[in-house]
Amino acid sequence: KLVTELDFSLEKIEKGGFEHFMLKEIFEQPSVMHDVMRGRVRLEEGRVCLGGIEDYLDRLKQAKRIVICACGTSWHAGLIGEYLIEEFARIPVEVDYASEFRYRNPIVGKDDVVIVISQSGETADTLAALRTAKEKGALVMGICNVVGSTIARETLCGMYTHAGPEVGVASTKAFTAQVIMLYMLAMALSKGRTISHDEIILNLTELADLPAKADRILNLDGQIRDIAERFKDAKNFLYLGRGYNFPVALEGALKLKEISYIHAEGYPAAEMKHGPIALIDEDMPVIFIATRDSTYAKILSNIEEVRSRKGRVIAIASEGDKEVARLAEHVIYIPQASGPITPLLTVIPLQLLAYHIATLRGCNVDRPRNLAKSVTVE
Amino acid sequence: KLVTELDFSLEKIEKGGFEHFMLKEIFEQPSVMHDVMRGRVRLEEGRVCLGGIEDYLDRLKQAKRIVICACGTSWHAGLIGEYLIEEFARIPVEVDYASEFRYRNPIVGKDDVVIVISQSGETADTLAALRTAKEKGALVMGICNVVGSTIARETLCGMYTHAGPEVGVASTKAFTAQVIMLYMLAMALSKGRTISHDEIILNLTELADLPAKADRILNLDGQIRDIAERFKDAKNFLYLGRGYNFPVALEGALKLKEISYIHAEGYPAAEMKHGPIALIDEDMPVIFIATRDSTYAKILSNIEEVRSRKGRVIAIASEGDKEVARLAEHVIYIPQASGPITPLLTVIPLQLLAYHIATLRGCNVDRPRNLAKSVTVE
Repeated sequence: KLVTELDFSLEKIEKGGFEHFMLKEIFEQPSVMHDVMRGRVRLEEGRVCLGGIEDYLDRLKQAKRIVICACGTSWHAGLIGEYLIEEFARIPVEVDYASEFRYRNPIVGKDDVVIVISQSGETADTLAALRTAKEKGALVMGICNVVGSTIARETLCGMYTHAGPEVGVASTKAFTAQVIMLYMLAMALSKGRTISHDEIILNLTELADLPAKADRILNLDGQIRDIAERFKDAKNFLYLGRGYNFPVALEGALKLKEISYIHAEGYPAAEMKHGPIALIDEDMPVIFIATRDSTYAKILSNIEEVRSRKGRVIAIASEGDKEVARLAEHVIYIPQASGPITPLLTVIPLQLLAYHIATLRGCNVDRPRNLAKSVTVE
Repeated sequence: KLVTELDFSLEKIEKGGFEHFMLKEIFEQPSVMHDVMRGRVRLEEGRVCLGGIEDYLDRLKQAKRIVICACGTSWHAGLIGEYLIEEFARIPVEVDYASEFRYRNPIVGKDDVVIVISQSGETADTLAALRTAKEKGALVMGICNVVGSTIARETLCGMYTHAGPEVGVASTKAFTAQVIMLYMLAMALSKGRTISHDEIILNLTELADLPAKADRILNLDGQIRDIAERFKDAKNFLYLGRGYNFPVALEGALKLKEISYIHAEGYPAAEMKHGPIALIDEDMPVIFIATRDSTYAKILSNIEEVRSRKGRVIAIASEGDKEVARLAEHVIYIPQASGPITPLLTVIPLQLLAYHIATLRGCNVDRPRNLAKSVTVE
C-alpha cells in the first residue's frame, strides 16, 4: 500500500496570538457562528436554507421518529437537538450512544430518520451506527465538520458545520456549530407545519443575535480566570442544569474531565436529590446553570440546598438577575436570550473555566493525556 | 387536619440478624425475586399473568411508543426496561427523567403508553410526570412497591413489585423487583406477536433460575468485603458497562455515591475513549461489567486500555472466564445467564461492594447524609 505523506504540521496552522489552539477555538466561536449561518439563515424571508438536505426535507418532515446517534461531545449536541426538534417540530426524537445503538438491533425502519453527528466524520462507532441504520432502511442524515469525511460520504443527505479545522482535542467550536445546525434543522422541519411564520422570524432573530452575545461572554475571560484560580485544586466538581441546559451541564463536566483530569460529573439538577447530593460538602464545587426560564425557581431551591450543605456554588445566570447573586459564591452573567438559544451561550463560560483550570494546573490542554482527537477505533 | 400517629418505628422492623437494613435487603433479594414472580410466571403455560394490567394488555401491545418516566434508581430500572421491551416486543421506548419530561411539553398522546416507576409511589417529579401524561391522553401505567400509594392510585393500570418494605435509603431489592416486573412486562407484550412460544419458555426459564443464581452471588460476600477493604480509601471510581449492563454501571456508581460519599460515575464503556479515559491513573479504580455477550471482546480491549494507563480494574465476569482474570486485578464471578437476565445478577456484587466500602469508612448506610428515602418534594 502506497503511503502519501502530507506536508502538514500542527505548527503551520496559526494559533492567531493565542497560547493554545483550544483558546483560539473558543474565541473563534462568534465568527464561526456567523459562518455556520451564512447563506442559511434567511431572516427577511423567514426561513432557513439548508442545501444539503433540501431535496429530502419533505421526507424528513414526515418522519415518524428521529433517532440521533453520536458519541462524546456530539452526543451532547444531539441531546439539545432532541429538545429543539421536539419543542418546535413536534416529532419524537430519541438520542442514543452510537456504541449502544449499533449493538442492540435498534427499532428503525423506512419511516424513521437517523441523524448521525460527528465532528471528524470518522468516529468508528458512529459510522457503524450509520451503516446499521441504512441496512434497516432508515433515511440517514449526517452532521459533520470535516468535508468529504467517511460519514459525510456514506449518508444520504447532510449538512456541514463549516466550523473550520478544530485542532484542540477537546471540542468547542464544533459543538456550538453542531447545536446551531440542529436549531436550523428544527426550524426547517417546523416551517409550515408546527409553528407560525412570526415564530420562525422570532427564533431566527434570536439566532442572528447570537454571535454578538457570545462575543460579550468572551469579555468575561478575566473574571472566569479568577474563578478558575480559586477552584483549580478541587478534586471533584458537579455540574447541574435543567431542560436545554441539562446537556450543557454534561458538556461542561466533560470539558473539565478531558483537559484538567478533575473528576467532574454532569446531572439534571432535579436528580441531585436522588443521590448526588450525598456528595456535597465544603470540598465540592457545584456549577449551576440557572438562567431565567420555566424551571428557574426550582434551580434556586436546588442552590439553597447545596449552600445549606456548605457546597460552593458557581452559577451561570441571566444578566440582571440579583436573586442568584444572593445565593451563589460566584455568578457569571450571560446576556438575556430565549430558552432554546441559551445552551449556545451558557456553554462558553464552561469551556473557558475548564481551559483556565487546566492551564493553571499545568496540563497540556491541546493534547490531553490518553485522548485522541477523533476516535477511529471502537 | 387530624394527624394520626402510627405506632411504628424503624426498630420494630427486624433487621433479621443483619447489621443494617441495607444488608438485610440485599440478602433478601433471592426471596424477593420469588415473591415478585409468584403466580405471575406460569412456566408450564409459557406465559406471564399480570393481573393489574390484564384488561389493558391489548392496548399496551398496540402502543406506537412507550415512554418510561422515573427518577434515580427507578430511572436505571427504566433504562433496562427500554432494552428489554425493544429487544423482545419491538416497540420503541424512550426513557426520560421525570423532572425533565414534565417541563418540556412532551410529545405523547392517546396512542402512546407512559410507564411511571417509583418504589414509594410518592416521588414528586414522577407523580407530576404521570399527571402531565394523563392530561395529554396517554395510557399511564405504574410500577410501584408501596401498595395504595398516590402513583398507584392515579395510574389507569399497574403492577406492584411486592418487594416488601424497603427501609434502607439506598434502594436495592426494590430495584431488582422493578427490573423483573419490566422483564415480565416485555414477555407479556411479546407473546403471540414478536417472539415464539419456545422463546417465551426459554426466557421464563431463565427468570425462574434467577433466585438460585442470586443466592450463589451472595455467597461471595466475603470476597467482596476483601476487595472493599483494598479500595475503601479511593477518592473516585469509574463504573463501565455496555448494553444491558450499561444501566447497571450507572446504578453501581449511584449506590457508592449515596452511601460512601465517594465520587463514582457510570458510563457506557465505549464512551470512555471520548473523555473519561483522561481521568485514568493509578488512583482511579475502574469497575468493568464484562459478562460474556456480543460486546465482550470490546470490553476486554477497554480493560486493556485502562490497564496500560495503570488504572486498577475490578471486573464482574461470567463464571469460567479466564481471559478477564488475566487482565483484571480482581474478578467477581457471576453464574452464566442470558444477556437480558445479567443486570439482575451483576447489580448484586455492586450493591455489596458499595455497602462494604461505606461501612468500612464508618458511614451510616441506612441513613446517608443529605438523602431522604422518598423524594416527595420537587
